Amino acid sequence: MSIDSQTTDQQDTDQHDPRIGAVPIELNVATPFVARHLGPRDEDIADMLGVVGKDSLDDLIDTTLPGAIRSGKPLAIEAAASEQAVLAELREIAAQNTVLTSMIGLGYYGTVIPSVIKRNILQNPSWYTAYTPYQPEISQGRLEALLNFQTVVSELTGLDTANSSLLDESTAAAEAMTLMRRASKAPKGAVLLVDESVFPQSLGVIRTRALPIGIEVVVADIVGAGIDSPEALRAAAGDRDVFGVMVQYPGADGYLPPTAELRALTEAAHEAKALVTACADLLALTLATPPGQWGADVAVGTSQRFGVPMGFGGPHAGYMCVRSGLERTMPGRLVGVSKDAAGELGYRLALQTREQHIRREKATSNICTAQVLLAVLASMYAVYHGPGGLRRVALRVHGLATAIADRLRAAGVEVLHDRFFDTLAVRVPGRAEEVVSAARESGINLWRADEDTVWLSTDQQTTPQDATAVLAAFGVDSEPVGRVDIEAVDLASEWDGESVRTDDWLAQPVFNTFHNETAMMRYLKRLADRDYALDRGMIPLGSCTMKLNAATEMDCITWPEFADIHPFVPAEQSRGYRRMVDDLEAWLGDLTGYDAVSVQPNSGATGELAALMAIRAYHRDNGQTERDICLIPSSAHGTNAASAVMAGLRVVVVKSTDDGSIDMDDLRAKVEQHGDKLAAIMVTYPSTHGVYEDTITELTDLVHAAGGQVYIDGANMNALVGVARPGHFGGDASHLNLHKTFAIPHGGGGPGVGPVGVRKHLAPYLPNHPFDPAAGPETSDGPSVGAPYGSAGVLPISWAYLRLMGAAGLTKATGVAVLNANYVAARLREHYPVLYSGRDGIVAHECILDLRELTKRTGVTVEDVAKRLIDYGFHAPTMSFPVAGTLMVEPTESEDRTELDRFCDAMIAIRAEIEEVGDGDVDVADSALRAAPHTALCLTQEWTAPYSRAQAVYPPGVDPRSKYWPPVRRIDGAYGDRNLICTCPPPEAFEQA
Amino acid sequence: MSIDSQTTDQQDTDQHDPRIGAVPIELNVATPFVARHLGPRDEDIADMLGVVGKDSLDDLIDTTLPGAIRSGKPLAIEAAASEQAVLAELREIAAQNTVLTSMIGLGYYGTVIPSVIKRNILQNPSWYTAYTPYQPEISQGRLEALLNFQTVVSELTGLDTANSSLLDESTAAAEAMTLMRRASKAPKGAVLLVDESVFPQSLGVIRTRALPIGIEVVVADIVGAGIDSPEALRAAAGDRDVFGVMVQYPGADGYLPPTAELRALTEAAHEAKALVTACADLLALTLATPPGQWGADVAVGTSQRFGVPMGFGGPHAGYMCVRSGLERTMPGRLVGVSKDAAGELGYRLALQTREQHIRREKATSNICTAQVLLAVLASMYAVYHGPGGLRRVALRVHGLATAIADRLRAAGVEVLHDRFFDTLAVRVPGRAEEVVSAARESGINLWRADEDTVWLSTDQQTTPQDATAVLAAFGVDSEPVGRVDIEAVDLASEWDGESVRTDDWLAQPVFNTFHNETAMMRYLKRLADRDYALDRGMIPLGSCTMKLNAATEMDCITWPEFADIHPFVPAEQSRGYRRMVDDLEAWLGDLTGYDAVSVQPNSGATGELAALMAIRAYHRDNGQTERDICLIPSSAHGTNAASAVMAGLRVVVVKSTDDGSIDMDDLRAKVEQHGDKLAAIMVTYPSTHGVYEDTITELTDLVHAAGGQVYIDGANMNALVGVARPGHFGGDASHLNLHKTFAIPHGGGGPGVGPVGVRKHLAPYLPNHPFDPAAGPETSDGPSVGAPYGSAGVLPISWAYLRLMGAAGLTKATGVAVLNANYVAARLREHYPVLYSGRDGIVAHECILDLRELTKRTGVTVEDVAKRLIDYGFHAPTMSFPVAGTLMVEPTESEDRTELDRFCDAMIAIRAEIEEVGDGDVDVADSALRAAPHTALCLTQEWTAPYSRAQAVYPPGVDPRSKYWPPVRRIDGAYGDRNLICTCPPPEAFEQA
Repeated sequence: MSIDSQTTDQQDTDQHDPRIGAVPIELNVATPFVARHLGPRDEDIADMLGVVGKDSLDDLIDTTLPGAIRSGKPLAIEAAASEQAVLAELREIAAQNTVLTSMIGLGYYGTVIPSVIKRNILQNPSWYTAYTPYQPEISQGRLEALLNFQTVVSELTGLDTANSSLLDESTAAAEAMTLMRRASKAPKGAVLLVDESVFPQSLGVIRTRALPIGIEVVVADIVGAGIDSPEALRAAAGDRDVFGVMVQYPGADGYLPPTAELRALTEAAHEAKALVTACADLLALTLATPPGQWGADVAVGTSQRFGVPMGFGGPHAGYMCVRSGLERTMPGRLVGVSKDAAGELGYRLALQTREQHIRREKATSNICTAQVLLAVLASMYAVYHGPGGLRRVALRVHGLATAIADRLRAAGVEVLHDRFFDTLAVRVPGRAEEVVSAARESGINLWRADEDTVWLSTDQQTTPQDATAVLAAFGVDSEPVGRVDIEAVDLASEWDGESVRTDDWLAQPVFNTFHNETAMMRYLKRLADRDYALDRGMIPLGSCTMKLNAATEMDCITWPEFADIHPFVPAEQSRGYRRMVDDLEAWLGDLTGYDAVSVQPNSGATGELAALMAIRAYHRDNGQTERDICLIPSSAHGTNAASAVMAGLRVVVVKSTDDGSIDMDDLRAKVEQHGDKLAAIMVTYPSTHGVYEDTITELTDLVHAAGGQVYIDGANMNALVGVARPGHFGGDASHLNLHKTFAIPHGGGGPGVGPVGVRKHLAPYLPNHPFDPAAGPETSDGPSVGAPYGSAGVLPISWAYLRLMGAAGLTKATGVAVLNANYVAARLREHYPVLYSGRDGIVAHECILDLRELTKRTGVTVEDVAKRLIDYGFHAPTMSFPVAGTLMVEPTESEDRTELDRFCDAMIAIRAEIEEVGDGDVDVADSALRAAPHTALCLTQEWTAPYSRAQAVYPPGVDPRSKYWPPVRRIDGAYGDRNLICTCPPPEAFEQA
Repeated sequence: MSIDSQTTDQQDTDQHDPRIGAVPIELNVATPFVARHLGPRDEDIADMLGVVGKDSLDDLIDTTLPGAIRSGKPLAIEAAASEQAVLAELREIAAQNTVLTSMIGLGYYGTVIPSVIKRNILQNPSWYTAYTPYQPEISQGRLEALLNFQTVVSELTGLDTANSSLLDESTAAAEAMTLMRRASKAPKGAVLLVDESVFPQSLGVIRTRALPIGIEVVVADIVGAGIDSPEALRAAAGDRDVFGVMVQYPGADGYLPPTAELRALTEAAHEAKALVTACADLLALTLATPPGQWGADVAVGTSQRFGVPMGFGGPHAGYMCVRSGLERTMPGRLVGVSKDAAGELGYRLALQTREQHIRREKATSNICTAQVLLAVLASMYAVYHGPGGLRRVALRVHGLATAIADRLRAAGVEVLHDRFFDTLAVRVPGRAEEVVSAARESGINLWRADEDTVWLSTDQQTTPQDATAVLAAFGVDSEPVGRVDIEAVDLASEWDGESVRTDDWLAQPVFNTFHNETAMMRYLKRLADRDYALDRGMIPLGSCTMKLNAATEMDCITWPEFADIHPFVPAEQSRGYRRMVDDLEAWLGDLTGYDAVSVQPNSGATGELAALMAIRAYHRDNGQTERDICLIPSSAHGTNAASAVMAGLRVVVVKSTDDGSIDMDDLRAKVEQHGDKLAAIMVTYPSTHGVYEDTITELTDLVHAAGGQVYIDGANMNALVGVARPGHFGGDASHLNLHKTFAIPHGGGGPGVGPVGVRKHLAPYLPNHPFDPAAGPETSDGPSVGAPYGSAGVLPISWAYLRLMGAAGLTKATGVAVLNANYVAARLREHYPVLYSGRDGIVAHECILDLRELTKRTGVTVEDVAKRLIDYGFHAPTMSFPVAGTLMVEPTESEDRTELDRFCDAMIAIRAEIEEVGDGDVDVADSALRAAPHTALCLTQEWTAPYSRAQAVYPPGVDPRSKYWPPVRRIDGAYGDRNLICTCPPPEAFEQA
């Protein structure tokens, strides 16, 4: 198969042979999608090949990729379809889902996404195409939104420091487990004590994650047991030491325990050196005494019901909030307040030294991509509703549950608990199935807890009509339920005074200002205007693959047929989703050469962990439990090491040679040394240095021969699609990043999806799910996340991408991605050394520009260059990864030649600026490089710099009419870490101003 | 009914009595939509009432609105529904439309809107909430888009100057008629000669518009008659002089005449002093020799098939292009190139002196709102496809038509013409109905031209499968039609060499650069970033009512069930639309107190004309043809006068008194003077001065007594909804602006919808439609626009607005709109005289700030203040209308107190700047006022101004992090008018740069 045969401006993609006899599709378009997705036109490609010194894309790949691993077998994916046709297919698939009213609860609830938020965030590339805010100066808008999120979580839970954000409630609960273990002074061997009312899927993930790290999980009725002493706690744990206690608040069955009992429990736990985590419902916390007020150390949960569609399970932002003193051991991203070089307030990620990209195997978690876009949505729901509005939503939800409970009881049906927020456990001996069926007949999903018990949850979408229908399903023939009179709700008498929340919360101006749509729209615009996303220019982040997120791909995610499906609905209601999952798993299997794929992991890191868990389980079932060494090259992404530790493996680092390759001698030595203890090697291919290493086949043979498994990190899959299959060149397992290679937008740091692909022998160990036998094999160690198909709600994006590109298009994209990187390398090589390259000086899909010599000579750092690029209108490349003092550039196939040239020109101009420093004309401390980025504001102030205002903000290539203005000067991160503030300023701060 | 009873933050709107027993709707929202639509919270309203000196909104209205006209009868509109509920209702209504494949043609075609354009323009408030670009400095983005549009039209038609844009093809044809009449030297009494292949709906509008101005229209077979001499032309016109010839190109039946014949025709016409207009299909012009090359003087048509959904008839941008020499008599908006104060290139509206807002009854047309957003969409379709892509679209369309024709002929079915682009006329004696029915059965609409003839048109959405199905409907059992091989199309042999286009077109860089989605997305972002729309801040334009365009209201317009309906489908396929039209006509009738409403007029000006036509017809049918005087107050909007002239009326101006009211003495005198010749009076209520005049009842009585009709301009309806009904206080007819009062976005200058409401005696004269008996009464003089329900595609926006607001909400909105204006007046009165006001110094929904004394004293003009407001982050109020030297402010109900205060603070700060000039501290020529607006670029240049850079760009109240930067300094409009350039620069211009 020739890569070049796919021309960009031809009339039809169906001129290409479809791979497996798919029916040719007539495209009603003048230009196929492939030509829209790819940046360069065919004539540009020809020219650029000339610059790189290659005859064709095939030539480029042939001379770059080791011949042994190049795929002979063409992709089995269908030929490309037009955007119109794909939208039509998506409508058909959507129609195979059946949208009922879901009152299933269990952590997923009907909610109303305000249209103004949907339109201006979820349908706005300025928000969804942004990257993780590592470069804070160009991310102030989303950092403010995340600070709002943290404030919402902190105020609602009553705890001090919230992160933003985690992957879902279940993984957040698992993270709480390890956090408690780290923070507790309880002896080794102490157990995690989990209340039996914790959501079953959370318990599933907790067990999965506890297994490899040797934590024992004890499940008991804690909340109902009246525990008020360390002894009672110990007894509840089967006479074991306890390091952590976890309760669901309110419980899965709806029960809201009295605050006094919870306070007694936490006091007992603390006395026993255990910490307490509340898995808490944020909406309930608008009414009920928050965990922070009854002594919990940690709260976790989901922010889904703050305006984020259920999406068949995700993506939603999980949250975690901790009491003061625990913030430095908290996992995940944390936004904090700091100041910029001019002393003005600015936001940035705080305490990054906890994180895996810095701390590697000693990190607090392996979380990288999280759920930023979803956290932004949830925060804006709170901004738009304000405390009053949130409280009214909660009161209505509660009022409807109360109306149902009252009428059930009046009709003699037993409702198990008197104290509830939104969820009722109803006892109908022997009739649960019948009641659930009857409700389904009237368009409502309830939850069959067991054959005698039905659970149901009201939510923001529940109507009085729904409540009436639910009653009818129970056989209760009542007057129609009426509108809830929220003024009449008397929680103090329903619960008890102490259990009712009475303090003020979310009094900060941002939550009390933007309550009309006009103001809200403008606030969202103002924030978006501060940020740099793909809609402004290229984001050449090595290893991040910031490619086009096409509007067609994004179109369907807000359709109700995809958005409004609860993850635990009966299978016949989610046929469309299941079809999509089947397609994706088949296509990804074909692309990677693996025998089985699971799309469940909802981030790359989760996928990594799932793959390593499978390897671990495989060794175990082979009776080789001693295999616990994981080899990781020194150049690996920090997440690899962090994931290995979470999978119970010991990390052993393999050296790199001077040319950036894995040091095969060292590898041989390490394999030899660890022999029977070798569990796996984790390698990235092409390497994190952006090179297709020749030694890959030798490496995999070596590890296999020693009985180890080969994990190939899919971070760089964008350089392999259609040209090589990890499963065929020696990989046993890989994760993919659908948000890198397969067009799911980065959303400012999530959503992400991290499917895991494995060879046949590992397939029995892919993740499964307690509620969905189709989600994975029974033989597995359990679920990796809370929902059977993870972040199913964004899978349509990748599905659409694959359908739109087709086999030939995908392959060509790989060729162009490699060409673009080599074009940049060729243009910049004489200005900056290109650190590593393969045969003929050719790199793979990214290239590393080495600034170390320059820095040594001139004092100009990679950070200076990165910040100066902002003045030139660019997002910086990846800084100091995988090699300190370098910049790694990955242009992707979506950038066209004009943009590549603009970038190269900027880098060359910056090189000249560096030279002025090197020549002694300018002191680095006074240079535009060190002062970068420059704001518009600084132009109006006294000007003492040795360069002009125009040189500062309009360096060569910047069109003044299209200038991106950063809102702040360079942010001082260390200052903020020393003076940690992670919530919005209180109203008083504004009064003074 | 109390206005105040509708609180903003209450839990439910259904606490209010619904008007006509509608079932209360449970709102699953914490905050009803009304509180989202209104800016001020209830507590703000109370405070602001204090500032204004009123006790309540009811008190405010009671003391402002003359008691005699206040409605006692509450609105009959249903209670408000939640945004969720309205979206659900809209889905139900959408489902009542049936989307078939329409191959009807006749000016409306299937097309594919590129997703990147849909998302980034049609779903982006930065584009759709913008206003007409009268303030060019803050409109450079959309002005560039419109210049692109004009370039597309000019290059495709082969003529020199295109406008942007007209209301649809049919009205454009009517405008061409009057343009030709103005430009032709043919004697009075000469006729318009229209070829019989002109679209029937265009002919309908031409006849409607010809009637009042005494133009005779002769329809004949011109194209087929081989006219090659003035004599032959005269003969074809029934031995009459001819001032204009109009042909459809290609014809309605598909026939594409040879260029040689058309050239002979135009030469004959020119010799006879007649001009020639081609109603031309832009897509066909990518292949066929354009009108400009065969001698046409004018080309008109629609740009719908350039990516704009059919939308059951609109909105779409009509176009007009004229040869050099005719540009100054062209109707509508014209964008041109000029320069700014710094000598840099900048765009602005050119030759505005032709337009109605300046030239009043001597204007070239009454066009005000046009179809800017749709012109932008069409232009971007061309930008994205480029000339190559457009040509490929056209070739495919042609190829499919050819495939159908060839197979029909092969099967012995007669296809009438050999020369066609996309449309076939097929002769099936006696079987037309049967064929059309058979096609419909297979999901395709064809057109039954007569009982023996079927017409059908291929388009961008037509698939080979459709073509095969069409053949089957004709009873032709053929092999499936295959993909079109566009390389094999040989037009020169199908047509003739001379008829095939061979020149290069759209070679300008903008049409050859943004062909990948990433580049296109960024181009759209860059343009949007240059503009100021409602998403940045208030646009306090008096008489324009720039209120919130809520995201929920906008959501449905892109749904296929609304977007993909041809206007001429059988009624049973458009049930949803018809239900919506019925609802709207009933609701608007209730709001206005009129007996009948037509939503057909697709702009306010069109509605005005339709109303005046009804009045004219009424007098005629009463035997009072001598009634042709139309009284218009001196303060009236220029459109009134222009429309009156188009309706064949003579304008007589009634004076205003010093306090801004209509001079009742002068009115009495004029009524007396014209007596039996009095046709009508056109008044705006509240007046264009923003005052509820006490004399309105007296005025209407006076005119009625004299036998005249009262036309009440609905421009200021936002001050009346729910509190007074024009039809009840003396109006006989009104037009409304759905894009002002009823939330359709202004789109940068359209779409607009201008429904006309009339009392019973005028109902027989409302517009109708040749293809749709339900669209209007048979007794009418004809259609006002091309489609039965005008711009039906945006009616869902107003429908949603009315459903979301409900009776109480609408009424409260009126109260808040009046309050907001009075609050601004109260805060600014001591700084700027408020020109007119009613009792107690209270204004209606807008206020006029008088700068004349200040200007006299200081030299600072209203333009200086308007431009300085840009530096403060505002769109200027309306300048010098209705009184020169003033600013008219209409805040609308959607602006909250924070924004109103920000505006007032800015105006007060500007007043201080004026005072510095007045005090002699600063020379006006050196002042920041005169230099405004200031760009960021100017900060980097040498600074000689007597004020600081910071004072220039960060005056009080401007947050540097939220600063809007205008891309240009003040534009020199006169320069551009002297050096008229109305297309994009050619590629050579860029080569030099």
